[in-house]
Amino acid sequence: MPDKVAAPEIDRLIKLLARLPGLGQRSARRAVLYLMKRRDQLLLPLAEAMQAAAESVRTCSRCGNLDSRDPCTICADPQRATGVLCIVEEVGDLWALERTAAFSGRYHILGGTLSALEGRGPEQLNVEKLVERVREEAVGEVILALSATVDGQTTAHYLAERLEDLGVSVTRLAHGVPVGGELDYLDDGTLTAALRARR
Amino acid sequence: MPDKVAAPEIDRLIKLLARLPGLGQRSARRAVLYLMKRRDQLLLPLAEAMQAAAESVRTCSRCGNLDSRDPCTICADPQRATGVLCIVEEVGDLWALERTAAFSGRYHILGGTLSALEGRGPEQLNVEKLVERVREEAVGEVILALSATVDGQTTAHYLAERLEDLGVSVTRLAHGVPVGGELDYLDDGTLTAALRARR
Ligand SMILES: [Zn+2]
Ligand SMILES: [Zn+2]
Repeated sequence: MPDKVAAPEIDRLIKLLARLPGLGQRSARRAVLYLMKRRDQLLLPLAEAMQAAAESVRTCSRCGNLDSRDPCTICADPQRATGVLCIVEEVGDLWALERTAAFSGRYHILGGTLSALEGRGPEQLNVEKLVERVREEAVGEVILALSATVDGQTTAHYLAERLEDLGVSVTRLAHGVPVGGELDYLDDGTLTAALRARR
Repeated sequence: MPDKVAAPEIDRLIKLLARLPGLGQRSARRAVLYLMKRRDQLLLPLAEAMQAAAESVRTCSRCGNLDSRDPCTICADPQRATGVLCIVEEVGDLWALERTAAFSGRYHILGGTLSALEGRGPEQLNVEKLVERVREEAVGEVILALSATVDGQTTAHYLAERLEDLGVSVTRLAHGVPVGGELDYLDDGTLTAALRARR
């Protein structure tokens, strides 16, 4: 949108919204018009919700989850089994698994996979903390819920090796799960089955 | 997303974002994860831009445009021809026409079309103000840039009748333009041609 078409406040809002995944310039323009018509019901509540999330949500220093508590609600929950850790790439994967309610252990969020192409080595991932947790939390089983891509499988091999001497059993979800951070695209039943049939 | 999966601040943000046109629950979740990873570069600027737009952007009391000034920048611009009014359904249509830079008159935003199905009569539209403007601003031509739907054409007929006795010439964009508020989907060339070939 050329600068002079709309007020600078509107242009700026369109530009920022267009940076969200799945929104382009045109859908950002439509979203802004929609918001401007719903100032009190949607625009202001959204602004406040963003402010609140920015202020109070932090990364859990133990598992990498997002929460307003640290350690996060899952890490702090005495009902969750401490002996089983499910390793995922992104927080969205944790959400997907939690929606199935099929897993009662704890999580560890890697923050991605190893990637030669993107130059991401172990030091860019949340790996040392994982090794530390396996040692300190008496973990008996680590479930690797990583994507079925080459990078995901390279990462799984690397982690299996790193954990080899720690006396922990390493399992994987049955069925290849979709590309990184996209467990969200599996339906709950498939995800639950993949979790139960881990090997 | 069940309530307990993420922090309440995150759940609330997902719920509000999912109400935007074109975003569902899943894309709202992805957007929130994207935002949380870009707290300072995107999340906070977006919250502030929304706040600023909510505080400063108003509906122009003359034409119905959105702007931080009232009358809006277009209504207040002495360079814009006062004798020609282009009638559109929504602010998004004004933006689309402005992007072509092919129109140098002023606008009047109706706020939709007449609709029997949705029970929208003339009193729900910005019609009286239009009649008033045609009288007071010495308007010689009114261009109807309304959608090619039945409702759009009903509205065009109604407006032509209302303006009949005011000695103003009423023209329409050549080629049917797409459904209401969707001039945005025409490329600039088509829109410019439709404007030039009005009849
Ligand atoms: Zn945690
Ligand atoms: Zn105006």
